[in-house]
Amino acid sequence: MKILVLNCGSSSLKYQLFDMTDESVLAKGLVERIGISGSRIKHSKGAESTVRETDIPDHTSAIKLVLELLQDAKLGALKSLGELGAVGHRIVHGGEKNDKSALIDASVIKDIEDCTYLAPLHNPANLMGVRAMQTALPGVPNVAAFDTAFHQTMPPKAYIYGIPYKYYENDRVRRYSFHGMSHAYVAARAAEILAKPASSLKIITCHMGNGSSVTAVDGGRSVDSSLGMGTTPGILMGTRCGDVDASVILYLMEKEADLKKVSDILHKESGLLGVSGVSSDLRDIEEAAAKGDERAKLAADILCTTVKKYIASYAAVMGGVDAIVFTAGIGENSDVTRREVTRGMEFMGVKLDDSKNDGLRGKEAIISADDSKVKVMVVPTNEELMIARDTRRLAEKS
Amino acid sequence: MKILVLNCGSSSLKYQLFDMTDESVLAKGLVERIGISGSRIKHSKGAESTVRETDIPDHTSAIKLVLELLQDAKLGALKSLGELGAVGHRIVHGGEKNDKSALIDASVIKDIEDCTYLAPLHNPANLMGVRAMQTALPGVPNVAAFDTAFHQTMPPKAYIYGIPYKYYENDRVRRYSFHGMSHAYVAARAAEILAKPASSLKIITCHMGNGSSVTAVDGGRSVDSSLGMGTTPGILMGTRCGDVDASVILYLMEKEADLKKVSDILHKESGLLGVSGVSSDLRDIEEAAAKGDERAKLAADILCTTVKKYIASYAAVMGGVDAIVFTAGIGENSDVTRREVTRGMEFMGVKLDDSKNDGLRGKEAIISADDSKVKVMVVPTNEELMIARDTRRLAEKS
Repeated sequence: MKILVLNCGSSSLKYQLFDMTDESVLAKGLVERIGISGSRIKHSKGAESTVRETDIPDHTSAIKLVLELLQDAKLGALKSLGELGAVGHRIVHGGEKNDKSALIDASVIKDIEDCTYLAPLHNPANLMGVRAMQTALPGVPNVAAFDTAFHQTMPPKAYIYGIPYKYYENDRVRRYSFHGMSHAYVAARAAEILAKPASSLKIITCHMGNGSSVTAVDGGRSVDSSLGMGTTPGILMGTRCGDVDASVILYLMEKEADLKKVSDILHKESGLLGVSGVSSDLRDIEEAAAKGDERAKLAADILCTTVKKYIASYAAVMGGVDAIVFTAGIGENSDVTRREVTRGMEFMGVKLDDSKNDGLRGKEAIISADDSKVKVMVVPTNEELMIARDTRRLAEKS
Repeated sequence: MKILVLNCGSSSLKYQLFDMTDESVLAKGLVERIGISGSRIKHSKGAESTVRETDIPDHTSAIKLVLELLQDAKLGALKSLGELGAVGHRIVHGGEKNDKSALIDASVIKDIEDCTYLAPLHNPANLMGVRAMQTALPGVPNVAAFDTAFHQTMPPKAYIYGIPYKYYENDRVRRYSFHGMSHAYVAARAAEILAKPASSLKIITCHMGNGSSVTAVDGGRSVDSSLGMGTTPGILMGTRCGDVDASVILYLMEKEADLKKVSDILHKESGLLGVSGVSSDLRDIEEAAAKGDERAKLAADILCTTVKKYIASYAAVMGGVDAIVFTAGIGENSDVTRREVTRGMEFMGVKLDDSKNDGLRGKEAIISADDSKVKVMVVPTNEELMIARDTRRLAEKS
């Protein structure tokens, strides 16, 4: 079965076409600036790619273009659209009703709409992709893979905030956390690499990219995770603030006197960028820190210390830890970060092997010492494949 | 030397008179409802006490009354005020300039005033006590013992928030944390009990009362602490929220549309009270939970889990931990809480001895198993004595 996976933002659309017989990627691409001047599509098949700059007024036009390119004589991978078995959509917020991926019907669409107040930028964009695909390919099943679903196994003590309970009862204010497809994928893959059943393992997955989260995965189930109702808490991110005292938010509200402005500060001007003043990209920060920039060094220090603290606290939540997994842009590629995060954790059985860690980029590996009680691992994430697998399974059942 | 220790709130005043030759308490008391109808003073000496209901319009009148009672023929402990060597004041916020207790002069008073924006309820009340005492006893030295001072040894990676750095540079927005006299006292006392130099120990102090904080004390110095710029973050408190996602605060701001109201919710309606709906007092919560109240159980669970997480994360910050110390109302008296907090932490060398923990209330004790790598201890706090000691030392030097 061939499966198309879509990740729709408000003005962008990422896609990958999988052949599920061997889970290979047949083609992929990115549409940018949808509905804005200068819209373009970059499409690639293997090593070859093409860029087209053309008017793309909305998601329906974007999807039409994607489907055309997927059937292109040279860069396409489908003889006809009839080969497409199903389409999987990354949906950011599924609320409390969706604890796994779901075949999209009217009721699932209503769930996604109902969660829009919790993900006001993402859910409407995700839905545009779903509707455009329903229009373009009426007979093909669509599957929703929710970023929040994997974390729905968290117990109340992990997801209830210490504010009056009525805000949970009435408004569903609670921790949801995100990056669920990534945490689920790397935790499952780590169990495979360790050749142990996932149900027997306590794993801490560190998804560290431009957005980041740490998750405690006990027996294959998320039991705690560092993002929250929103996408700023937990560890320092590219431009998002990580954990901040409520009084600081109130102080900013009093000083800036504008909710939108404070929200923008916390989402777009904070994190590595806000602390360092250098960049939101850890590579720039590490370079500046190496040259002696004190605030760049501070930003990297805060990042590593916070991840270290989350790892230890999640080990405590689970009563121990068997494996720590690093993934996503920073987790897969920054050996310095992995070294600093795991340093000084011998007290809980963590011992890195520098010779295995140094220079390792984007490859699956166990990087702890052979006698480390806790395995430290790098597992490149593959959210798209995870979505494709769920999509295939649900489409075959339907 | 006889030392009077004062703790002034906006409408209350607590005091203790110490004889520093043996650090005994000669007399103590509480003035309530200063400037409000129904004002009263309760004064006691040993087992005997008296309550006087009388008009107390301001802090100067309150202090006049205290000084009278301290010289009372029956319940007093001073023959004349000339015996009073110095007065120690608990001051909540000393900002970044005050990293230890200080003899009060015009410059220290200015520091306290300058920090009023960081502790708007407390610092002005604390200063009223200082000024009233300067008026009543012009020749007697006054000493400021700051709640924040002990934590000034935290490194920047512990106190800088992940927001734009200018808020630190311009407005001194950073983590300060509080309860410093308590953390300093119990950490030092724990080292004495363990008969080891404080400089050689990694200690985590859990001050759990109506207000609560956890502190990492490495070699006698605070290196991280769970309260922040304000007094709501960290662990769940009686009515304060503990750690909450910034998006939740923004959501409350949007919903309630009033900064003061949101601040009141987070400070006065949250925490154990907000989650349980039962009470802000853990004793009531434990009673309700024992009877099957689910939300009371949830509130207690969140409290214990959060403390557990902080302990593990601070062990990671220090690269290990030698002793965990419980203190203040909950820490000293709730064996259930101590058991739940330390449960499942064998992976990091923590093993409680239930027979030592069960039923222990308000007494110094080591409650870990003899073969526990990490010592778990109960050390009743004594902030007043700590203030009296600092006051004596500074008064003798002056």
